[in-house]
Amino acid sequence: MRPVETVSRTIDSYRPVVGDAAVDTLLEAARPLRGLRVMHVNATPDGGGVAEILQAAVPLLCDLGLDSSWTVLSAEPEFYDVTKRMHNLLQGADGQLSDLDRRRWADWQELNATILPADVDLVVVHDPQPLGLASAAGGGAARWIWRLHIDTSHPDRDAWRFLRPYLEPYSALVFTLDQFAPPDVPDDRVRVIAPAIDPLDPKNRSLPIGTALSKLAGLGLDARRPLIAQVARLDPWKDPIGVIDAYRLVRGRHEGLQLALLGATEADDDPEAVEVARAVRAHAGKDPDIHVLTDPALIGDLEVGAVQLLAQVVFQKSLREGFGLTVSEAMWKSTPVVAGRVGGIPLQLQDGQGGFLVDSVEEAAERCDWLLSEPARARAIGAAGRAVIQERFLITRLLADELTLYREVLASREQQALRPRPDRLAAAG
Amino acid sequence: MRPVETVSRTIDSYRPVVGDAAVDTLLEAARPLRGLRVMHVNATPDGGGVAEILQAAVPLLCDLGLDSSWTVLSAEPEFYDVTKRMHNLLQGADGQLSDLDRRRWADWQELNATILPADVDLVVVHDPQPLGLASAAGGGAARWIWRLHIDTSHPDRDAWRFLRPYLEPYSALVFTLDQFAPPDVPDDRVRVIAPAIDPLDPKNRSLPIGTALSKLAGLGLDARRPLIAQVARLDPWKDPIGVIDAYRLVRGRHEGLQLALLGATEADDDPEAVEVARAVRAHAGKDPDIHVLTDPALIGDLEVGAVQLLAQVVFQKSLREGFGLTVSEAMWKSTPVVAGRVGGIPLQLQDGQGGFLVDSVEEAAERCDWLLSEPARARAIGAAGRAVIQERFLITRLLADELTLYREVLASREQQALRPRPDRLAAAG
Repeated sequence: MRPVETVSRTIDSYRPVVGDAAVDTLLEAARPLRGLRVMHVNATPDGGGVAEILQAAVPLLCDLGLDSSWTVLSAEPEFYDVTKRMHNLLQGADGQLSDLDRRRWADWQELNATILPADVDLVVVHDPQPLGLASAAGGGAARWIWRLHIDTSHPDRDAWRFLRPYLEPYSALVFTLDQFAPPDVPDDRVRVIAPAIDPLDPKNRSLPIGTALSKLAGLGLDARRPLIAQVARLDPWKDPIGVIDAYRLVRGRHEGLQLALLGATEADDDPEAVEVARAVRAHAGKDPDIHVLTDPALIGDLEVGAVQLLAQVVFQKSLREGFGLTVSEAMWKSTPVVAGRVGGIPLQLQDGQGGFLVDSVEEAAERCDWLLSEPARARAIGAAGRAVIQERFLITRLLADELTLYREVLASREQQALRPRPDRLAAAG
Repeated sequence: MRPVETVSRTIDSYRPVVGDAAVDTLLEAARPLRGLRVMHVNATPDGGGVAEILQAAVPLLCDLGLDSSWTVLSAEPEFYDVTKRMHNLLQGADGQLSDLDRRRWADWQELNATILPADVDLVVVHDPQPLGLASAAGGGAARWIWRLHIDTSHPDRDAWRFLRPYLEPYSALVFTLDQFAPPDVPDDRVRVIAPAIDPLDPKNRSLPIGTALSKLAGLGLDARRPLIAQVARLDPWKDPIGVIDAYRLVRGRHEGLQLALLGATEADDDPEAVEVARAVRAHAGKDPDIHVLTDPALIGDLEVGAVQLLAQVVFQKSLREGFGLTVSEAMWKSTPVVAGRVGGIPLQLQDGQGGFLVDSVEEAAERCDWLLSEPARARAIGAAGRAVIQERFLITRLLADELTLYREVLASREQQALRPRPDRLAAAG
């Protein structure tokens, strides 16, 4: 285990964005938790959505008066091979964990537990990598929360059977969506907290129009011509090919239309992404108006923000999706989004409120065509999307949910005393 | 008097824009008025806001089942010299009407009345030019409505004293704003109907983004750089000089900022506008990013629509204003407007709902700077503006008000039986 340093933040800096009422409510909710020692544990200090959220949430919890800290697991590289496979298995992939894998995983839980700080009231364990810490720590004075960020609705049976006993010491099991919970988790401990974006992240900060226009030009895109874009890892599940096909269906009706696909790809790191990029480029052919942008040196946070702000339409044509926070990111820029009706996307986006949900390339093309033909109405739709994010998908709402969860967990005498949620009761009844 | 032909329109073509409910309500309201012979009378078949409204309203009233027609006065050129002066006097300008002027005006009322069609149930007289028709017609079977589109809150006393007796035969006196009515008009006959824009006018129709971008380029404006604009006659009361000064206060913070001032000026027709254009160009100096566009051949409806759609900020920095329908036009494009807090503007625009009201160049610059710095929020503000226009300033709302007025006028046994509005009663009480 090693502590992660975060850049300090003040909750007051969010006032201009989220409003005084939201910040005051947070301060009020945090008051009874002042001094509470909360430790977040995950596998990595950077890269990925969990690290992104913790980088903001941990210092903000400190500023709210909690004694909040962040620790990452220490382990040998082989451990991460195991957890990567475990991650895929839990999401329903084929494969299996050998006895050695299981032992290696369990051993590193024990090893890390020995150096677990004792002076902690609450431990929030993120994702499967450090799940075994609670058992390894043998209970102790702290209360434990497991926060799972992936879709485990159809986990590999064996992998899940292996992990399931490790849930025992946790007072609460927190999923991103209700339907992400495996069928056999104890309902009375299940909680749902949707993820959120950080409006002060460079990617999401308000970008002056001039800066955005020049960032766009830096990517080789021309603001004098209509632009549609998708910002997503180049991955078949994000359907970049389908986006190109949708573009081809509408470009005849919108002269000069450009398509930008932004997916930073580290060549060394991700041979699969490189391969997909090659296939996407092949599908684009010689069309000079399709821009497949993968160079991480080129696609900085401000460039992503500029494209999300200035594109007339942003796609998230996913065929499968966890939550899809890039949808929230684009909606936060008041830009209409055309997105696949999958995973957590419908939770963020409803037809006409920030864009449209689609089930096919044809439908994506049709919605895109309409948005390009009706820019004044498209703006109204985009603006409604921003309002949704403002209300429900900013990090301040996530912090409020976390504080409620902490209070609830601390108030319960023992795990079982956690009150089942009424909807679960009804379903069980 | 001569009839004006209008291009036929169907109310059904407004369904996609204003919604079925609004159209159905209109059809319902028009049912008891089917076959009603309504004649609108004004001075000119084209040019100006009144003609623009009648071009849409008259054929739409026909489509709603009324027998609606439009007639313009016939008169010698000298008559219009008189009415132009009369117009200015009623708006508070200095000057006077000679005995000859008055006689000339009254004679043409008599002359036109002799050829007034007899088979009319309701005559709606627009503005002062044909005001005397009702008296000249000596009552008759028709009922009469006077609709005044200008600000007569501080009329020249003599001119008003001359015209006032001609109000006598009118059942209703309709003003654009309550405060536009002269202090001594009979309150119980005063009605207020705000003007409206026609969403199917080429200027206001939805313009595909690609067309808009190419129209912008045709004006010599660059969509790759931020753009602010004012669309208004080059007239000191529209404060084009103040707009240039506001632009100068913000351009240092927004590299590449362009300012466009669109005011079509017919050189032969309007020597005063040519003079103002010269002064505006002199004030602009050699700044290549200030575009003073006055060539009517260049500034078509689509160009105006494109600028209103694509500018990041539209100004209407009027120092005095009748209603200021160009504010509604820009708001209808979901574009944020920075406008003077004068005349009818605050009726359309409230802070944050479509833009901001300002009282000075400095304030205009400050709001403009903010909108350019916060484009995602600016879009939300612009979208809120569109919603205001959708609800309150489209021609369908105006038609609904007209129909209500017709019913009310026809229902009253005699003029005095018109029920005074409660607020007027309270003020009088």
